[in-house]
Amino acid sequence: MITSRDVARLAGVSQPTVSRALRGDQRVSEDTREKVRRAAEALSYVPSETGRSLSTRTTNRIGVVVTDLTNPFYPHLIGPLHDELERHGYRMMLFTERDETAVTSQRLLDRSIDGVVLATATVSSRLPEELQRRELPFVFLNREGGGQSGDAAVVDNELGGRLVAQELARLGHRDIACIGGPSETTTGRDREMGFRLGLSEAGIALPETSVRRGPFDFDTGYRALEELLEARPTAVFCGNDVIAIGAFNAARRLGVRIPEDLTLIGFDDIPMASWETFDLTTVHYDLAALAQTSARLLVERIESDGRAEARRTLFEPSLVLRSTHASPGR
Amino acid sequence: MITSRDVARLAGVSQPTVSRALRGDQRVSEDTREKVRRAAEALSYVPSETGRSLSTRTTNRIGVVVTDLTNPFYPHLIGPLHDELERHGYRMMLFTERDETAVTSQRLLDRSIDGVVLATATVSSRLPEELQRRELPFVFLNREGGGQSGDAAVVDNELGGRLVAQELARLGHRDIACIGGPSETTTGRDREMGFRLGLSEAGIALPETSVRRGPFDFDTGYRALEELLEARPTAVFCGNDVIAIGAFNAARRLGVRIPEDLTLIGFDDIPMASWETFDLTTVHYDLAALAQTSARLLVERIESDGRAEARRTLFEPSLVLRSTHASPGR
Repeated sequence: MITSRDVARLAGVSQPTVSRALRGDQRVSEDTREKVRRAAEALSYVPSETGRSLSTRTTNRIGVVVTDLTNPFYPHLIGPLHDELERHGYRMMLFTERDETAVTSQRLLDRSIDGVVLATATVSSRLPEELQRRELPFVFLNREGGGQSGDAAVVDNELGGRLVAQELARLGHRDIACIGGPSETTTGRDREMGFRLGLSEAGIALPETSVRRGPFDFDTGYRALEELLEARPTAVFCGNDVIAIGAFNAARRLGVRIPEDLTLIGFDDIPMASWETFDLTTVHYDLAALAQTSARLLVERIESDGRAEARRTLFEPSLVLRSTHASPGR
Repeated sequence: MITSRDVARLAGVSQPTVSRALRGDQRVSEDTREKVRRAAEALSYVPSETGRSLSTRTTNRIGVVVTDLTNPFYPHLIGPLHDELERHGYRMMLFTERDETAVTSQRLLDRSIDGVVLATATVSSRLPEELQRRELPFVFLNREGGGQSGDAAVVDNELGGRLVAQELARLGHRDIACIGGPSETTTGRDREMGFRLGLSEAGIALPETSVRRGPFDFDTGYRALEELLEARPTAVFCGNDVIAIGAFNAARRLGVRIPEDLTLIGFDDIPMASWETFDLTTVHYDLAALAQTSARLLVERIESDGRAEARRTLFEPSLVLRSTHASPGR
């Protein structure tokens, strides 16, 4: 049987270099990778995943936990995440569970992966704690867990919410509503908190009757808008673009004109937000860089020996003014 | 060290039943699964993935190859696919490569998975042939490979294209354009072929100058529409809904009214097609059932001993008439 030792000999490199080169680690030079590939091909060598795992105790696989892949937000995170992990020689294994149950936790902990990207953590999730206890490296992407600290690549959600409040106040809105994400997510919670803070600084009240919350999806916005309109708000802030697009479609159904009758603002600036049909005013940040950063933080954590301090990279948001905002009663 | 043998003894079941129960195979009764779970918990038993692989030569993982996850079409396939595989005790491993290169093929063949769902096969892809040669079970989902036969869950794309042509002819359109998917995909090729056939039966020509082709994405439709409008078509058939929505947005930018100035028809009936903002006339089929069927075909192939004949399940499409079609010059 042909082993990596034979490939190493033929290519004139060390055995670890063969493994790295064949898994596409870009820290091995292109020349060397090509040399190893040619040697492996000449010998018809296919590395055995299972065998390698037992010998090196690493799998070069990273688990990514995402609870709602049909939400158009996540694919925009997962593309850049995949490419960045690949660049470091790791392959991505997607766990698209409905929620972070014991099943997921068991599956993550069976040692078939070297680390985990948590893209849909909730404040009350016990998974981060469990991962830490079992010493499986992880990173928070976009959302953070509650008590547990850990490496994280996140947006300054509070600032984003505040920027929206300031803009609405500047435009002269006083009757304002909010369709937020789930309170048990840091994104949902902090965006709403920042929004409330900004409104309060401008002397504007946001009564609880003018607030709805739900999953970060189309239906949340679509369903909430009609109810909220009873109180005749002139502006609605939505916890993300997908909720805003749901609300946008409900407005269309109800004959409410945007922005003439109602100002609508989202959060995330996913590609869909800039489509002509929506041209949504929203909060922007670098989605791809956020995902790439989480990959780098995790790889560095996996490949470092010691127990370095947790690192948190905070991305700064900015407001993108498109066509869904106006002064009230315009 | 606690082994599955200990769990089996405590739960009073066989060792294979422990494995099946713990990976959530729903063909083990809920009662038995619960009993095994309690026994495993009592003994703090976590199955070792790697150890199991070597002993049983199976991994209970299924690879799913998708080359463009940011395309809003695929998440709607992947959700149902994930759930159906889970129901059979398999977990999904997503390969989101940019294209089906040798890298993917190597990664699929390293025996870390039991089978493969090919969701973005191309006509010229050599991967199916390679998989067959290496005896790794696979199934085509939505798209089929070229020469290689294999299990497949697909839509009658030709019939779908034909239905659109018949409807356009019935409405009185004669000047018709087409923005098709890639010719090297069976979906792109067969939808266009059926469309041409239907037009030709109605005595309508489709000159090559009125046809554009490209990836099944937003940009393809967005870019192609302006060029095609020079020939003043009254209707455009798009290879899928995502292309149609790109064209819809380009029409918005150009001030072309739909359906008054232009009829626009898509294919797939993804949830977005029925949003108020688009209300797209399109070709419908059961997306979720398509994905589930592919999962079942693959699992049966993996778990069968012999070399059964390849099975091809063909889904019947139907036209959904919404708001983007009208008679010309209305």
